[in-house]
Amino acid sequence: MSAAPARIAFIGLGSMGLPMARNLVVAGHEVAGFDMRAEATARLAAHGGRAADSAAAALDGADIAILMVVNITQAEDALFTNGAIEGLSPGGVVIVMATCPPAAMAALAGRVEAAGYGFLDAPVSGGVVGAQAGSLTIMAAGRTDIFETAKPVLDRLGKKIFHVGTEAGQGSTAKAVNQLMCGAHIAVAAEAMALAERFGVDRQTMFEIVSGSAASSWMLLDRGPRMLEDEPHVTSAIDIFVKDLGIVVETGEGAQAPLPMARQALDLFRRVSAAGMGSLDDSQLIRAYRAPIATET
Amino acid sequence: MSAAPARIAFIGLGSMGLPMARNLVVAGHEVAGFDMRAEATARLAAHGGRAADSAAAALDGADIAILMVVNITQAEDALFTNGAIEGLSPGGVVIVMATCPPAAMAALAGRVEAAGYGFLDAPVSGGVVGAQAGSLTIMAAGRTDIFETAKPVLDRLGKKIFHVGTEAGQGSTAKAVNQLMCGAHIAVAAEAMALAERFGVDRQTMFEIVSGSAASSWMLLDRGPRMLEDEPHVTSAIDIFVKDLGIVVETGEGAQAPLPMARQALDLFRRVSAAGMGSLDDSQLIRAYRAPIATET
Repeated sequence: MSAAPARIAFIGLGSMGLPMARNLVVAGHEVAGFDMRAEATARLAAHGGRAADSAAAALDGADIAILMVVNITQAEDALFTNGAIEGLSPGGVVIVMATCPPAAMAALAGRVEAAGYGFLDAPVSGGVVGAQAGSLTIMAAGRTDIFETAKPVLDRLGKKIFHVGTEAGQGSTAKAVNQLMCGAHIAVAAEAMALAERFGVDRQTMFEIVSGSAASSWMLLDRGPRMLEDEPHVTSAIDIFVKDLGIVVETGEGAQAPLPMARQALDLFRRVSAAGMGSLDDSQLIRAYRAPIATET
Repeated sequence: MSAAPARIAFIGLGSMGLPMARNLVVAGHEVAGFDMRAEATARLAAHGGRAADSAAAALDGADIAILMVVNITQAEDALFTNGAIEGLSPGGVVIVMATCPPAAMAALAGRVEAAGYGFLDAPVSGGVVGAQAGSLTIMAAGRTDIFETAKPVLDRLGKKIFHVGTEAGQGSTAKAVNQLMCGAHIAVAAEAMALAERFGVDRQTMFEIVSGSAASSWMLLDRGPRMLEDEPHVTSAIDIFVKDLGIVVETGEGAQAPLPMARQALDLFRRVSAAGMGSLDDSQLIRAYRAPIATET
């Protein structure tokens, strides 16, 4: 790889991917982008990137391929359909930043390495706001030399860049640990506020008490006020945690890790989703505590 | 009651009660204290209070009786054994600040009111540190005029005084809601750190990630570092949450409130306690996730 800014292929230009790719354009990188939705690809072009008409076309001649796709299958398809990965420059690196199960991430790393390229398992937290501001938290795992190669690029996307381990899968594990806490904390806040509600304790007062005590959490402070609304604006949907807590539980499965709190939280999110409310703001998990879907397992 | 500082009977002079009673002495109140352990009663006398040799002797002539005992049975015994409550001044008020089940607290309020006295259900949070500093959070429920009468005294014990409702039991409910979140957050933190551990993700790095992300909680920041130790100093014991989460679940029971997260957390605390580790620091709940007690329900 040359000392010039890395040429980057960016696959997956959704609400996270597009602003991330744009930050790389602003930093002086040549960015070729591809998304299955042509209009998403076109938006990158409007911001100084190059619109590629396939993943293979985006990867062709790139030093680094970043994948911010929906799941591991999309990542695999983008890299291996029509031999796309073979277009990467010698010494090229693949960075998968989507939230995926650790075991699947490790398996994908194996395929990429067998093809002769470096691999970084590097999921993020910080949401759309962090993606736009270039202030994401990045949990990267992979060989130290690969991490060092990718570091200058990661620095353009995030503010806190952690090298959590040398084995692909450990980045995804760190992300799963993070999502376990986020999802379970939403469930705990919903359960607590619903209990206060049931006993006629003023919810606003209750929120004030717990948000200023040892009971507080980031999620309580963020989601709590929206739990007190009937139809809050959707900041992040119930179904996001149906997916993410599903990955958490799958992660534990492979290692016989007991995850009773996460399983219980997943059950609550699934129950609300199954009742047709999967696209509601995730603060509405509190509805799992109200009739008629409040039956306890 | 006169305009002079209220004469106070303080029952229960343990690690919480003694510093609270002392703060009232410092504020200029005449405080008669009683604890079943004579040495605890003697300690109050050493700090300017009057040592009473029974609850009845402490209550005799008091305007306000404060009970910071272990459970509702102790509160009931202190008030009604040998007609102790009849020693209170006309217009006297009973304030129970112990953590008790809401239904039992409401029943006790009924007995006190039938005897002609006011009642305040006013549990606290903030621990020994808050008791010493007079910075407790107080969740008081009861008639508004009773609350106003007690307020100047409560102001000497706490920094945030909430009137959460007009019915006895609602203060205890607010406390249960608070403890639900505290206990469940310890369980979530333990589950998360144990998952990272199992996958060989560096625990210190993992703690740094989640403590700075949307995954954070007050309990994670406080207990997390002690979860990484093998034999941490005991700040609060496992068995405290065996009791408090037991009260949370009992609270829900009476109102058919679904409490899946709290039940699961209680099960974990009980499991560690049953394995003989009830007096360990509650950060050691993480041991529920390690063999041989890690079997999932």
